[in-house]
Amino acid sequence: MVDTMEILEHRIRKSGMVLPGGVLNVDSFLNHQMDPALFVDMANELRRLFAAQNVNKILTIETSGIGLACITGYIFECPVLFARKHKAKNMSGEFFTARVESFTHGNISTIYVSKRFLSADDRILIIDDFLANGAALGGLISLVEQSGAAVVGAGIAIEKTFQPGGDIIRERGYQVESLARIKSMGDDGSIEFC
Amino acid sequence: MVDTMEILEHRIRKSGMVLPGGVLNVDSFLNHQMDPALFVDMANELRRLFAAQNVNKILTIETSGIGLACITGYIFECPVLFARKHKAKNMSGEFFTARVESFTHGNISTIYVSKRFLSADDRILIIDDFLANGAALGGLISLVEQSGAAVVGAGIAIEKTFQPGGDIIRERGYQVESLARIKSMGDDGSIEFC
Repeated sequence: MVDTMEILEHRIRKSGMVLPGGVLNVDSFLNHQMDPALFVDMANELRRLFAAQNVNKILTIETSGIGLACITGYIFECPVLFARKHKAKNMSGEFFTARVESFTHGNISTIYVSKRFLSADDRILIIDDFLANGAALGGLISLVEQSGAAVVGAGIAIEKTFQPGGDIIRERGYQVESLARIKSMGDDGSIEFC
Repeated sequence: MVDTMEILEHRIRKSGMVLPGGVLNVDSFLNHQMDPALFVDMANELRRLFAAQNVNKILTIETSGIGLACITGYIFECPVLFARKHKAKNMSGEFFTARVESFTHGNISTIYVSKRFLSADDRILIIDDFLANGAALGGLISLVEQSGAAVVGAGIAIEKTFQPGGDIIRERGYQVESLARIKSMGDDGSIEFC
């Protein structure tokens, strides 16, 4: 665990950029350009953390979670489902939906997953790149629970512990494992980890 | 080669749904729910097809290409970049842009990649889930060529050969390798492969 977290923290320190407004830009390795080898290390750590949970499906949300989720599904040897933020023309059938407020984009949107891909006997691990206010994660939990499936927990790349999402979701009883936990970010670009 | 193509064709026959208007729904294994083990087989086949090309980066476009591209990057041991369809608040710096007409959504949109992640010495393999009219692929080629990097080719999951994109891009001299090639789809739900 220490090793993977150290690798990720080192990468954030080296390549992350702190932007005004508490935004951390990690688009060189996580959410614009992606480093699949790093994702394999992260997924192996998540497999260790959720080893006892009999995960049979991964759920994430487009767009930035998909790469890490797909590698995690490869390591867990299970399918990966991503919630969509828009209803495309080629989507058919019935959907579970949830409303998600985006603090980044300043709006409220609906997310969708097909009812065909979640059922009551599923054990779902949720994956996302960031956990801050917890809005996306809360929406994903809602989608799973509408289906009757079990949320076994959430695996997050980077949690901003100075925002309330992690505490809120953990207080609801969910196992949330964040591979890097940021306590604060300074206006000088400094990053302090937990 | 035959094996991977047969596995993918079998999966399309078994799980794909032909919808009105020439739409093939493969959201049980390719672009809503994803099968990472299948993607590894596909990526290994792409590595064989592009073995001589010294690929050092994968490029795709959000959303549906990301999962396959990320697994392909893992197999090629190189980073994966995805073009964005929207300019998010947390995107900074300068971008290469291209205009892409979507026949699925009936609009023209701009796609973006950061100039930081494409440079003249890169050898780029483009990955996407579908090739039909070739609009997205043409846009991705434009992004790469604006940077001076080389497009070594494109690896596509499913090509609809009854639409013109594949011919257009190949006539421009690019190596386009499609792992499944669909010649026609019938109103009765039948699918004929090349």
